[in-house]
Amino acid sequence: MFFETFISLHKSLRMEVRPIKIKEGMKISELIESFSFSAFNARRLGESAKLWRRMIEEKAFIFLTLAGAMIPAGMREIIKDLLEKEFVNSLVLTGANLVHEICEALGFKHELGDANASDVELAENDVNRIYDVFISTSSFMAVEELLATLFKDLEGSRSSRELVWLIGSKLENSFLRTAFDKKIPVFCPTFHDSIAGLHLALYGKKVVLDYKKDISEILDLCSQKRKMGIVIVGGGVPKNFALQAMLLSNGFDYAIQITTDSPQFGGLSGATLEEAKSWCKLKKDAKTVTVYCDATIALPLICSYLVDNKL
Amino acid sequence: MFFETFISLHKSLRMEVRPIKIKEGMKISELIESFSFSAFNARRLGESAKLWRRMIEEKAFIFLTLAGAMIPAGMREIIKDLLEKEFVNSLVLTGANLVHEICEALGFKHELGDANASDVELAENDVNRIYDVFISTSSFMAVEELLATLFKDLEGSRSSRELVWLIGSKLENSFLRTAFDKKIPVFCPTFHDSIAGLHLALYGKKVVLDYKKDISEILDLCSQKRKMGIVIVGGGVPKNFALQAMLLSNGFDYAIQITTDSPQFGGLSGATLEEAKSWCKLKKDAKTVTVYCDATIALPLICSYLVDNKL
Amino acid sequence: MFFETFISLHKSLRMEVRPIKIKEGMKISELIESFSFSAFNARRLGESAKLWRRMIEEKAFIFLTLAGAMIPAGMREIIKDLLEKEFVNSLVLTGANLVHEICEALGFKHELGDANASDVELAENDVNRIYDVFISTSSFMAVEELLATLFKDLEGSRSSRELVWLIGSKLENSFLRTAFDKKIPVFCPTFHDSIAGLHLALYGKKVVLDYKKDISEILDLCSQKRKMGIVIVGGGVPKNFALQAMLLSNGFDYAIQITTDSPQFGGLSGATLEEAKSWCKLKKDAKTVTVYCDATIALPLICSYLVDNKL
Amino acid sequence: MFFETFISLHKSLRMEVRPIKIKEGMKISELIESFSFSAFNARRLGESAKLWRRMIEEKAFIFLTLAGAMIPAGMREIIKDLLEKEFVNSLVLTGANLVHEICEALGFKHELGDANASDVELAENDVNRIYDVFISTSSFMAVEELLATLFKDLEGSRSSRELVWLIGSKLENSFLRTAFDKKIPVFCPTFHDSIAGLHLALYGKKVVLDYKKDISEILDLCSQKRKMGIVIVGGGVPKNFALQAMLLSNGFDYAIQITTDSPQFGGLSGATLEEAKSWCKLKKDAKTVTVYCDATIALPLICSYLVDNKL
Repeated sequence: MFFETFISLHKSLRMEVRPIKIKEGMKISELIESFSFSAFNARRLGESAKLWRRMIEEKAFIFLTLAGAMIPAGMREIIKDLLEKEFVNSLVLTGANLVHEICEALGFKHELGDANASDVELAENDVNRIYDVFISTSSFMAVEELLATLFKDLEGSRSSRELVWLIGSKLENSFLRTAFDKKIPVFCPTFHDSIAGLHLALYGKKVVLDYKKDISEILDLCSQKRKMGIVIVGGGVPKNFALQAMLLSNGFDYAIQITTDSPQFGGLSGATLEEAKSWCKLKKDAKTVTVYCDATIALPLICSYLVDNKL
Repeated sequence: MFFETFISLHKSLRMEVRPIKIKEGMKISELIESFSFSAFNARRLGESAKLWRRMIEEKAFIFLTLAGAMIPAGMREIIKDLLEKEFVNSLVLTGANLVHEICEALGFKHELGDANASDVELAENDVNRIYDVFISTSSFMAVEELLATLFKDLEGSRSSRELVWLIGSKLENSFLRTAFDKKIPVFCPTFHDSIAGLHLALYGKKVVLDYKKDISEILDLCSQKRKMGIVIVGGGVPKNFALQAMLLSNGFDYAIQITTDSPQFGGLSGATLEEAKSWCKLKKDAKTVTVYCDATIALPLICSYLVDNKL
Repeated sequence: MFFETFISLHKSLRMEVRPIKIKEGMKISELIESFSFSAFNARRLGESAKLWRRMIEEKAFIFLTLAGAMIPAGMREIIKDLLEKEFVNSLVLTGANLVHEICEALGFKHELGDANASDVELAENDVNRIYDVFISTSSFMAVEELLATLFKDLEGSRSSRELVWLIGSKLENSFLRTAFDKKIPVFCPTFHDSIAGLHLALYGKKVVLDYKKDISEILDLCSQKRKMGIVIVGGGVPKNFALQAMLLSNGFDYAIQITTDSPQFGGLSGATLEEAKSWCKLKKDAKTVTVYCDATIALPLICSYLVDNKL
Repeated sequence: MFFETFISLHKSLRMEVRPIKIKEGMKISELIESFSFSAFNARRLGESAKLWRRMIEEKAFIFLTLAGAMIPAGMREIIKDLLEKEFVNSLVLTGANLVHEICEALGFKHELGDANASDVELAENDVNRIYDVFISTSSFMAVEELLATLFKDLEGSRSSRELVWLIGSKLENSFLRTAFDKKIPVFCPTFHDSIAGLHLALYGKKVVLDYKKDISEILDLCSQKRKMGIVIVGGGVPKNFALQAMLLSNGFDYAIQITTDSPQFGGLSGATLEEAKSWCKLKKDAKTVTVYCDATIALPLICSYLVDNKL
């Protein structure tokens, strides 16, 4: 039935694959445009850029969920831009990305490393490895110092969003500060599953991290009377936490997924966006695109398209 | 240096690949034994079974971490067996696996589904899809009823481990009951990121889920004076939560990983176990094996080997 | 339409996922049986074993296509068994698998190696690496000697199938000899893309490798008036060569695929078996199963099921 | 030893990850430059672009090998550009890419399709599917007509390279014509494993496709006294055919690989370039980069960098 429509549509609308043509001095946004008439993941990358732009155009409320080591990999300026330009209205990120962002904001730098380095020698030199990125153990001591000070006298129960804003308020030059300044809600549903969580357990004797408050807040955000969109980078808890918040509302209108995982193993991070429709986390007629690509490549390309196609 | 030793060792010890020979009525444990003289992931599967057995032999304390939809996929009896036979001393699982186990224990069944089904039609029929598994929405209502009752009058702050035992105490025929009965610690660091978490937010007005208590408890478990082992199924938060708990101790002695993710994209679930050595989560000389295989295939095979090679 | 039928079928036939239960001394064939009531790739593995058995039961003509380093990985006895027991009626394999089988048949052994070995040091020690398998360069000298002798005085045009039988006739203890003895056609459409091909170019001055003869022969095999089946291990040229031979006939009735590649990148080795229906290489109502798993694990399991469920 | 050098080098040279910053109207070549200071596959993509440029700068002889459905996916203009600008000196491609290029050159177009279309309905409408690309069966009839005419009276033995040039000489507006005009050797080691191969078998009664001639020719190309480079797109026979041709020479100096396959399953298409060093197909000190990314995304990006950074 779907397909009959499709075939007849197809017969009238049939569109050709247009071979990609490189020009000298070509802009990223031009290439992304031409990607959408090619195939495989280039086409999807092009379509995802256009769908994101459409979300912005329709003034949708847009969640960005962030898993995978995006901050160590050099994506922090892009996240900041997305918040500043309001291409994203709420962020859901992992505790690891939070911690690594604090490192960078405090002036500690991730370094170009080697994925084949000896991990034993790295350990002996107080260097930690994230695939081909190195970071020295001393960076985390600076994080500990900041968080110990913050957590020591903190009292009562706090959502991860409140803790993230509190941390953001103490930093300069960080998307966490941007979020605090612009009052953009940033949820961190794996705060406890990170070095920040260890520090909370060690130093925050009087404070309780209460995710029930995060759940209430994100449920409220999901029940807004406007178009709702989501951009999922890498799956994991951030993906599920934001999608699940729609269980009590009407489902997302738009969804984009950038992942390197595959559907055929049954796990959440690789699950198709269609699957989320069976759970009513997406509306039946939601527009969706999944790009199977390392987000370090796809995200800068898509953002470049958004910047060049501002409304 | 490592390799010089290796080459000279290799010259004296060189071992041949032994072609696998199938016999009529062959037992799984025989095949696993012969896998360890083949190559690629069959060899690793054989080696992981032997390494797990060695952990048991050396009376190591063994964590099993469980991500991916293992309960919907039919792995619950295996988990129960692993706990009953004490092949595992602590479990770290996702909220989703917890919720689906409650469904099954309450008598609701997952069903053989079709990965290509129309998710829109499924939604209209109150059927939820997990790749090729279906589960009716009504199952979750039964979960809600149980949890609402449990959470309504619950007071104070509780670790996820305490909540899991509480739930287990109310069930029959579930590995959660086994864990409760045998006092095996089961951590659920994404309890809040599941339907159980939603119910906690809706009904548990007087109780706080306090992961700081889980962190304290798992840090204690990790500081035991005995060999420490970990078996990681599928990565995710359970992997990180257990590995990270070693940051304040000496590192694991043994680690097995069963994953369908790949290292080259820089994410945690695909990260090599060697990478964890640079973080000192594993000892420098820790023995490790990673099997790149769907856990629905690998886990039953390995467990069968353990059952047939009991001490 | 398809799905409406499915839903109504589903309502009457709904089958439960049956949790896998391990028993002491469990036979592989028992586990495979229970796999077919689980999920994800375990279920598919179970279904593929049953589908292969059905092909045998219906006296289908069965092609086995073999790509990937299956012989170095220890699968040669299994291939031999499949031919001897007539679970397979024709083989299509890569030149690499042919060459490594000759090595083994000549008494040279692949060795258990290390995927992280230094390839430079290996080269200096005349050791070649295939992931975690080593083979010494001297093995290939023995192959060269054999092939030089065979090719030197060979005249006329020969199909790869004729060359494979000729080689098989000179070997003992090899599935190539089994094929020669039992007159089972073995095609090697990448004969020229292997060390054997180099030797043919160097020594076979008077012989021409003529694939047109292979094409004629496989076209004839594909036009038989009986059920036609195919078991595809690892994709590549063997997959395409056998599927394409159906373009002039009616299409396969049954197809099984064991692959570690994924569909979403648009390549042939990961392409779904459904895609082959649009090309009429498979019949519209062909029964198909794809198992996403390392064949070193899946193939021995499936063969074990066949051996225990002989007709 | 390697790593000691590395650590000390690292201590003096340590380079920071530089967060990627998007600018309005940003050129692709600028982004690629900044990719090389990020991480994971973005970094590798940046490094591969620089390495390819270095090959050109050093006047290396550069092979491009092409597997996967690159022509259907819209890459034909890029291939043409690479040949015209002499960024590539020889091409090794699959028979499928050859056939689809002939379709396009004859004016038949691939169309934007749907990966979830019903393949049975497509077959009934004479539409063939390659993931999300459609092509009508009639296109192939035009190919057949051309090839039948060409092959009918052709006599003697021909290499695939000769056949490709012959075909190219009959086409306008195709990279095959460019190759013919500029006398750039194009090898097609799976010519026989394609529709063109079927037509050769059906119509080319007096001609023999003799790969021994291809082998001689590529062996000669590989023995040139200049720097030798290779750019591998997608693995398969083209990868092996070109790498193997170095077995009798000194090995490649430079190698780039763009693949979506992974090393851990032991197959050739996912094998690391380091592994090729153990076979002496690459020099010990060869510079190598592997980018794990869909080539429809990576190839246009890299080519754009080359165009903007001409010498």
